[in-house]
Amino acid sequence: MTDSTNRKLRVGILGATGVVGQRFIQLLEGHPRFEVTALAASGRSQGKTYAEDCSWRLPGEMPERVKMIVVESPAPRLDCDFVFSSLPGEIAGEAEESFARAGFPVITNSSPHRMDPDVPLLIPEVNPEHLDLIPTQRAARGYERGYIVTNPNCSTIVIAMALAPLQRSFGVESCIATTMQAISGAGYPGVASLDITDNVLPFIGGEEEKIESETVKILGRCDGKTIVDAEMKISAQCNRVNVIDGHLAAVRVKLSQSASLDQVREALAAFTSVPQELKLYSAPAKPIIVRDEVDRPQPRLDRDAGLGMSVTVGRIARDNVLDYRFVALGHNTIRGAAGAAILNAELLIAMGELR
Amino acid sequence: MTDSTNRKLRVGILGATGVVGQRFIQLLEGHPRFEVTALAASGRSQGKTYAEDCSWRLPGEMPERVKMIVVESPAPRLDCDFVFSSLPGEIAGEAEESFARAGFPVITNSSPHRMDPDVPLLIPEVNPEHLDLIPTQRAARGYERGYIVTNPNCSTIVIAMALAPLQRSFGVESCIATTMQAISGAGYPGVASLDITDNVLPFIGGEEEKIESETVKILGRCDGKTIVDAEMKISAQCNRVNVIDGHLAAVRVKLSQSASLDQVREALAAFTSVPQELKLYSAPAKPIIVRDEVDRPQPRLDRDAGLGMSVTVGRIARDNVLDYRFVALGHNTIRGAAGAAILNAELLIAMGELR
Amino acid sequence: MTDSTNRKLRVGILGATGVVGQRFIQLLEGHPRFEVTALAASGRSQGKTYAEDCSWRLPGEMPERVKMIVVESPAPRLDCDFVFSSLPGEIAGEAEESFARAGFPVITNSSPHRMDPDVPLLIPEVNPEHLDLIPTQRAARGYERGYIVTNPNCSTIVIAMALAPLQRSFGVESCIATTMQAISGAGYPGVASLDITDNVLPFIGGEEEKIESETVKILGRCDGKTIVDAEMKISAQCNRVNVIDGHLAAVRVKLSQSASLDQVREALAAFTSVPQELKLYSAPAKPIIVRDEVDRPQPRLDRDAGLGMSVTVGRIARDNVLDYRFVALGHNTIRGAAGAAILNAELLIAMGELR
Amino acid sequence: MTDSTNRKLRVGILGATGVVGQRFIQLLEGHPRFEVTALAASGRSQGKTYAEDCSWRLPGEMPERVKMIVVESPAPRLDCDFVFSSLPGEIAGEAEESFARAGFPVITNSSPHRMDPDVPLLIPEVNPEHLDLIPTQRAARGYERGYIVTNPNCSTIVIAMALAPLQRSFGVESCIATTMQAISGAGYPGVASLDITDNVLPFIGGEEEKIESETVKILGRCDGKTIVDAEMKISAQCNRVNVIDGHLAAVRVKLSQSASLDQVREALAAFTSVPQELKLYSAPAKPIIVRDEVDRPQPRLDRDAGLGMSVTVGRIARDNVLDYRFVALGHNTIRGAAGAAILNAELLIAMGELR
Repeated sequence: MTDSTNRKLRVGILGATGVVGQRFIQLLEGHPRFEVTALAASGRSQGKTYAEDCSWRLPGEMPERVKMIVVESPAPRLDCDFVFSSLPGEIAGEAEESFARAGFPVITNSSPHRMDPDVPLLIPEVNPEHLDLIPTQRAARGYERGYIVTNPNCSTIVIAMALAPLQRSFGVESCIATTMQAISGAGYPGVASLDITDNVLPFIGGEEEKIESETVKILGRCDGKTIVDAEMKISAQCNRVNVIDGHLAAVRVKLSQSASLDQVREALAAFTSVPQELKLYSAPAKPIIVRDEVDRPQPRLDRDAGLGMSVTVGRIARDNVLDYRFVALGHNTIRGAAGAAILNAELLIAMGELR
Repeated sequence: MTDSTNRKLRVGILGATGVVGQRFIQLLEGHPRFEVTALAASGRSQGKTYAEDCSWRLPGEMPERVKMIVVESPAPRLDCDFVFSSLPGEIAGEAEESFARAGFPVITNSSPHRMDPDVPLLIPEVNPEHLDLIPTQRAARGYERGYIVTNPNCSTIVIAMALAPLQRSFGVESCIATTMQAISGAGYPGVASLDITDNVLPFIGGEEEKIESETVKILGRCDGKTIVDAEMKISAQCNRVNVIDGHLAAVRVKLSQSASLDQVREALAAFTSVPQELKLYSAPAKPIIVRDEVDRPQPRLDRDAGLGMSVTVGRIARDNVLDYRFVALGHNTIRGAAGAAILNAELLIAMGELR
Repeated sequence: MTDSTNRKLRVGILGATGVVGQRFIQLLEGHPRFEVTALAASGRSQGKTYAEDCSWRLPGEMPERVKMIVVESPAPRLDCDFVFSSLPGEIAGEAEESFARAGFPVITNSSPHRMDPDVPLLIPEVNPEHLDLIPTQRAARGYERGYIVTNPNCSTIVIAMALAPLQRSFGVESCIATTMQAISGAGYPGVASLDITDNVLPFIGGEEEKIESETVKILGRCDGKTIVDAEMKISAQCNRVNVIDGHLAAVRVKLSQSASLDQVREALAAFTSVPQELKLYSAPAKPIIVRDEVDRPQPRLDRDAGLGMSVTVGRIARDNVLDYRFVALGHNTIRGAAGAAILNAELLIAMGELR
Repeated sequence: MTDSTNRKLRVGILGATGVVGQRFIQLLEGHPRFEVTALAASGRSQGKTYAEDCSWRLPGEMPERVKMIVVESPAPRLDCDFVFSSLPGEIAGEAEESFARAGFPVITNSSPHRMDPDVPLLIPEVNPEHLDLIPTQRAARGYERGYIVTNPNCSTIVIAMALAPLQRSFGVESCIATTMQAISGAGYPGVASLDITDNVLPFIGGEEEKIESETVKILGRCDGKTIVDAEMKISAQCNRVNVIDGHLAAVRVKLSQSASLDQVREALAAFTSVPQELKLYSAPAKPIIVRDEVDRPQPRLDRDAGLGMSVTVGRIARDNVLDYRFVALGHNTIRGAAGAAILNAELLIAMGELR
C-alpha cells in the first residue's frame, strides 16, 4: 500500500451484530490499516456493550478489543474515520446517505445504493476504474468529504469475478447461472432449520434480479459520469442449499469470439488485477483458482481458499447449448460480503480516497 | 386395466437388496397385478433369506411376504413370469440379456441397455409408441418370449417429463438443466456423510452424459424399426445435495414457436397421457403438478406428490437468455426408478406384451 | 369405542397454524369421531381463511375441508363442541381457562396447566385413572361443563411411556435420561439452520425441568383429589440435534426390585393398556415396540411406527452404574403432541367425559 | 521444551491416507520438532506418491512437502526416527509390534494395544506418570530402543480429561456419559449419508466398551510395573450425530466427597498440568475451558478451542440422581486422535524417551 504514514484508520461498523457484521470484526482483527472504534446496530438504545448485545456465532471467540465497545444506533455521530455497513436493506439506504452527508466515506455491503447510477458497484479486481464515479457522486449529492461505495450481492460477486477474465479475453454475450447458496447468506436467524434440512429451497427473494442487474453494471464501462451496462444477457436461478458458507454457481457462457477450452481455462487461471499489483492486504494471490479435479469446487473444501477471498472455478467444459460451462464457488460472507467491503476500502486507500 | 383375467403376475426382482430393489418391494406390496415370488442380488450364494440378507433402509418394516424368500443369484432360473431389474451397471447388461434370451420380459431401471437402438427407453406418459420396437428387438436378438424395456435415469425422467408437453405444444429447440440430486440416487452406502454434510458435490459420474443423450431418445420419434432422436440440444450440469429423496432440476428452455407464459403454464398443468387414460394402477392423476407459490417445488414437501409418481413444476417465468425457465422435481427412487419400471410393466400389460 | 350414536364431535383447534396445529389437522383428516369446524390462532383478526393464513409445512397438501375455514382469535366463541390447544405457552394458560369456564372441554398440548394439582397430565396407556381429577377440577374452579386435560411435553411422554411398564413390574427408583430432540419440537421457524447444521445444541429452555417434574406426576398415584408424585428421582439432560421429527432418549434406570434382562425386555415388549383394550381409534396396537437390532431405534426409520403413536425401545442392556439402560424413541409431533391429545380425547369419549 | 539440540525428529506416519492420517500431516506442518519423512498405508504397493494416493478431505490444500513422498506399506523399513500410527484396528496390533521390535518408538492412536497391561494409555495432562511403564514394557517384550505408547479413544479422551480434575479434587465414584459423536470419528467413507441425514445412530461398534474400560485405566495408578484401575464405575451410551467434527458428552458424576457447585466449576476451570508447565508445543494454554453460557459447548463453535486441543465444559449443574452433571466437548480428530498422539510425542521428548 502506498500510504506513507500508515496511521490506522478508525472504523465504524453499521450492522455490527449480524452475521456479516461479525465477519467484519473477525476479518479486521489484526488488520494493519484499520482499527474498529465504533459499532452500531439498528434499533439500539445506547448502553449495551458489544459483548452484552451480540450473540457471537462464528467459531472462535469474540475479539477482546470489541467486547467493551458500546453499541450505538446507526446515526452519524460515531467516533470513526469511515464506516463499513451491513445494515438491513430496509434501513441501510437512508442511514448510509446520512453518514455520507455528514462526511463519512461509506463502504457498504447493503443493497439499496448498488444500482444508483452515481454509486460504484465495486470489485477491485474487476472494475477499479468505476471509482471515477466518486467525484460525480459528490457533486450530484452535495457530499463534501463523504461518499458511498458498494460491493455486489454475495452470489453476483462470484459470477462476475468468473466472467471478468472471459469478458476481457473473449467477450461474453450471455450467461446462464444457477446458484446453490449457503444459509449464512440469509443472516441470522435467517433460514429455519425445518425449511432446509433434507431440502432445497428454489427461491431467494430478490436474488435472481440482483444477479441479473448487478452483473451488467459491474462489467459495464465507466465513462466518467456514469456506467454503461455491459451488453450481455444474464439469466439467474437461485436456490438455497444446506451449506453453512460458500455459494456455488453452475454457469454456462456464450462468448463473443471463439476460444478453445485451453484458452478459456488459461484466461481464468491467469487472471490477476489491480489488487494483486498493489499487493492490497486482503487481496488473494490468485483471485481465481482453477481446479482440475472432476469433483471440485466444493463449498466445504474450497470456500476458505485465499483466506476466503479467492473464487474457485472447476469443471470447465464445452457446453451443448451455450459455448462453455463451469462451476464457480466463493465464500459468501468473506469475498461475498465483509471481505469484499474491506478490499474495497483498501483500494480506496491506495487511490487516495480514504485517509 | 384391460386384462380380464386379473391373474397376478409373478415377479422376480434383480438387485433386490439395494435402495431401488427395496423400493420395488415396498411399491409392489398390495399391487393388484403383481406379486413378488423371486429375489436375486449379485454375488449371492443361495441360502440366505431376504430378511437375513437385506439391511432394510426404508422407513417402515420389511413386508412380511418377502422376508422368507431366499435371495438367489441373478441367473434366469428364477420362479417368476418376468423380472424387474435394478442390478448394478457393471453386471446388469449381461444378466438382463440372459433373462431375455431365456424368455423373461426384463423391465429394467439399470443403464446398460438404455441407449441400445432396439430397446425402448420408456416413459409411459411420454413415448408409449416406442414399445413398437419390441418386435424389432426380438427379431434382431433372436428372443422368443423375452425382451428388454428400460426406463430412464432418475434425473432424466424428471426433465423429460417436463419437456414433453412443451415439445408437444410448441417444440423445444434447446434445454439447459442444472440438477440438485438426492443422496438416495447413489444407492447404499453411496455418498459418504463426510462428503455431503455442509457441502455440495458438483459432480455425479456419467450423469450429465446420460441426461444429454437419453432425453433426445425419449423425446424422439419411433419409425417402427428404430428411434430418431429429437432435434434439440440438451445441456446438463449435475450436483449432489444433502437431500434424502427428490431430484430437483433448474431448467431453461428455448421453444420452437413463441408462446405466452400462460400457454406454457397451461401446457404443463393440463398434461395428461396414455397411463391416465388407461387408468394404470401406478399412474398419477396428474403426471405434472404445477405449483404457483414462489418457493415450490421443494424436495421434502413435494417429492411424494402423486405417491411419488408426479413431477412437480414451479417458478415458471420468462428467461433472459433462453425463452422460459422453471424448476422441476421428481422422486428419484419412485418416479425416477422403481415406480417408473412398475408403470412400464403396467403399460406392457395393457398393451398385451406382458401376461 | 363405546359411544353408540357415533355422531361426530365438532372440534376447534387453538394454535391451528403452528407445527402442532398442522399435525392436528392432518391427523384428524378422516377421523371417525371428530370433524374440524373451527380454527383459531393467536393475534388473528377475523377474516383470513386457513388457506390464506397458514404456511403449510407438512409433506402433502393442506386438507381441502379446512382451507376455507376462517381463522379466528382464540376466544371461547368458536363453533365447536370442544377444543384441542397447541397455543404458545405465554397465552395458552389464560385462553384455555376461558374456554373451560365457557363450557368447552379443553384438551391441550400446551404446558401452562400441566402441573396444576387438579389437572390430569394424561397418557392413556399410563395413567387413565388420573381422569378422576376432573370432578375435583370442576368443583375447585367452578367449571360446569368444561375442564382442562393436558398431555405431557414431547420428550417426557417418550420417557414416561418407557418407564411405565418397568414401574408396574419392578418399581423404578431413579432414571437418568439424555435426550436428542428433533427440530420440529421447537415449532416454526424455531431452530435457526445456522445453529443446528453441523452442530448439536446442548440446551432446550425449560425442557429438563419439564421432564424431571412431569414424569413423577404422570407416574404418580391419583387419590381422587390430587396426584401423589411417584417416589423416583429423574435426571434429564436435553440436546437438540439435526433431525426433523423424532425425539430419542438414552435412558438408565435403577429398579426397586431385581429383574433379569429378559424380564426387563419382556415387560417393555408385552406392555399394553386401556387404549388397546378399548381399541381407541388412534391407539397403536403396541404402545411400545422393542427392537433387538444393535442400531435401532433410529429417528428416521422408527418415528412413524404405529403411525407415529408407538414408542420404540432398543439397545436394552445392563448398566454399570444404574441397573439397566436402553434407548427410546417417539414421534414428537404425533405421540409427543397432536396424537397424544387426540388419543386423550378418544379416551375421554370412552369414559363418557366428552360427547 | 527442554531438548537443547532442537534437531527435528524424522517422523513416519502409518495409516497416512485416512482421516486421522491427514490430520497428522496437517498438524505437523510447521511443527518445530517433527518433520514428516515417511508415509505408509495398509495394502500399498510401493510406487504411488502421497499426492497420487491420497484423496485429501480436509479444508485447505495438501501440504507441499508431503506430496512427493512415496506411500509405502507399513513395514519397519521406513526412513524415520519414530512413527505415529493410525492404522485400522485389524492390522495395527501386529504392525505396531513389528515397528517397536525393530527399534522404532510407536506413538499410536489405534486401539489394539491400549489395554495391554504394559502399555501406557496416555493423556499428558492426566497420567504422565504412566510413562513409567516403558522400561517394564521393553523388558517384557524384549524391545531395545522401541516401545509402544497409545492414546485413548476419541470420546474417552474427552470424558477422561473432564473427570481428571474432579477425581484429583474430590474423587469420582461413578460416571454416566452419553455421547453424541461426529461422523469424522468413523473415518472415510465411514458413515453413509443415507444413515445420518435427518437421523441419529444410537450405536457405535465397540465404543461403549472402550469408554468404560479405558477411562478407569487412564485414571488409574501406576505402581511402576502395571496400572491399577481407578475404582470408579463408568457407564457409556454412544450415539452418532450429524456433525462433522467434535464429540459431545452429556455427563453425570457421583463424587467421593461432597463439593459445592462453585468448587466443581473451579476444579475444572483451574485445571492445568505437566504439558502446560513444560510448555509443550501442542499443549493448549487451558486443557479445560469452562463456559458459562446456557447453550455451550456446541461442536461447531467450540471444537477448535485451543486449536482443537482444549476440552470445553459447560452446563455444570447439580444432578437429581448422581451429584453433578455437565456437557463436555472435544475435537475428535485433533485432541481425540492426531493431536493427542503428537502431544504424547512432545511429552516423550521432554521425558527423554524420544530423541
